[in-house]
Amino acid sequence: HYSIQKGAAFLGIGIDNIYLVGVDERGKMIPEELEKEIERAKAEGAVPFFVSATCGTTVLGTFDPLQGIADVCQRHGIWLHVDAAWGGSALLSRKHRHLLAGIEADSVAWNPHKMLTVGLQCSAFLLRDSSGLLQRCHGASAAYLFQPDKFYDVSYDTGDKTIQCGRRVDCLKLWLLWKAVGTEGLERRVDRAFAFTRYLAEEVKRREGFQLVLEPEFINLCFWFVPPSLRGKEGSADYWSRLHKVAPAIKERMMRTGSMMVGYQPHGARVNFFRQIVTNPAVTRADLDFFLDEIERLGRDL
Amino acid sequence: HYSIQKGAAFLGIGIDNIYLVGVDERGKMIPEELEKEIERAKAEGAVPFFVSATCGTTVLGTFDPLQGIADVCQRHGIWLHVDAAWGGSALLSRKHRHLLAGIEADSVAWNPHKMLTVGLQCSAFLLRDSSGLLQRCHGASAAYLFQPDKFYDVSYDTGDKTIQCGRRVDCLKLWLLWKAVGTEGLERRVDRAFAFTRYLAEEVKRREGFQLVLEPEFINLCFWFVPPSLRGKEGSADYWSRLHKVAPAIKERMMRTGSMMVGYQPHGARVNFFRQIVTNPAVTRADLDFFLDEIERLGRDL
Repeated sequence: HYSIQKGAAFLGIGIDNIYLVGVDERGKMIPEELEKEIERAKAEGAVPFFVSATCGTTVLGTFDPLQGIADVCQRHGIWLHVDAAWGGSALLSRKHRHLLAGIEADSVAWNPHKMLTVGLQCSAFLLRDSSGLLQRCHGASAAYLFQPDKFYDVSYDTGDKTIQCGRRVDCLKLWLLWKAVGTEGLERRVDRAFAFTRYLAEEVKRREGFQLVLEPEFINLCFWFVPPSLRGKEGSADYWSRLHKVAPAIKERMMRTGSMMVGYQPHGARVNFFRQIVTNPAVTRADLDFFLDEIERLGRDL
Repeated sequence: HYSIQKGAAFLGIGIDNIYLVGVDERGKMIPEELEKEIERAKAEGAVPFFVSATCGTTVLGTFDPLQGIADVCQRHGIWLHVDAAWGGSALLSRKHRHLLAGIEADSVAWNPHKMLTVGLQCSAFLLRDSSGLLQRCHGASAAYLFQPDKFYDVSYDTGDKTIQCGRRVDCLKLWLLWKAVGTEGLERRVDRAFAFTRYLAEEVKRREGFQLVLEPEFINLCFWFVPPSLRGKEGSADYWSRLHKVAPAIKERMMRTGSMMVGYQPHGARVNFFRQIVTNPAVTRADLDFFLDEIERLGRDL
């Protein structure tokens, strides 16, 4: 994820000190490749200290094999961080939480504002450490802000643990949602999002001109729409360059019409494709059908 | 400000590489002291590159003498940053903007969520540079998030310039307020806050048992409440240690009563004092009188 690059630059670590680990064709980190990179780094005189695994990549919605990665990290004494910003909410579903097996890492990032539709922004940073690491790292003990002589337990004053000073109480939104719909209500949201994706995936396979980029593992539905003019021409020289232009053209039309908004992007060697994600619990099957019908209607003459 | 310490730790610069500059009795940076520190740093083999001046310190509301500081920075080719998070809003008042004379710095931070009461959080970072510095520093050009092949001008996509990825559109709140009350409406808010402070300062001087910590330069009203049992005993050995406990005790009472919330803190050699700041445009003179009366009532028997 590009945040690793930004973080390394920002923290003074330097992007040259990031080692990229090989992945399989779905984008899953290969534990053997991780171990190879760690050994290569050590041989180069570097001190590897941090591995970032991902649960739910941005585009394809891929989950890294956490248990294999954790074994490697443990062997080398390296901090394992899991970026579960996107996929972490699957833990709320008894049916789907297996995707995150092995998430007992040193640190985990999770964004309830993504899949659970808590209002932006609501980010949780979970630490295995219980020795006050954040206080030691970020605490500046500015007594003019965090008075130690209050009449209540000042351990509830968490401000000094954070990086920012003035900031909103973002956790309250999650707490209110949780109180309002309950653990089972959240689970239903998660399960429903998986079911929507399954439904759309089957429709995409059934409909002419629609093509899955890959079978969804999570709730990212990645697909191409192939307009009639390109169907059956996979063998022609300009097929992929022409297909690359289809999603942006349809996106422009949907935005000008005002009927929908849906993201598209290229990914590695794959040309532009749509990425649909449905988390809104108010969405109905009819909306999902409209979504595919509308792409068909807008892209028919391309 | 303690954010400099946090920032230096966080960015990998290291807090040992911060040089503190001497201030006068109000906490204003002394330009001659700045120049001395720069020369000391250079003599020690360091490369000074960044000076942070403050317009509106947290507790006392002090403004650094920007013009003198800018001259020193220019002579040494050092980036001048002005932390106007708190005091920057004074620029909206024709009567009070002189406090910020010389703010034409390399960078300025300003929080409209502070004095203008825009909802938290709303932070502006203003740069003199117009060459795309933020894009070059923070841009990761992740094409799967910031597609270059959109049908509209992608220079409006500012996401890649920022540190965070998912985040709220905080500027909209300021824009809406500005549209709603206008430049003159904002100016009235600023002027009113100064007038409230002036009123309270005069009342504090007039009332027995109240004592200004210093004449307010901005809208921070810093004062002690001296309960009857301590009045006239400034010479006694335990006067200051007893006064130190007064503000926390009154704060506890006001919180338990539920009548008010007001901050207190020690500052340098000064024992705990109240810091009152009134920015809410709905506050009336009667509220200000109640504020002082209530402190008197709650602290009378201490």
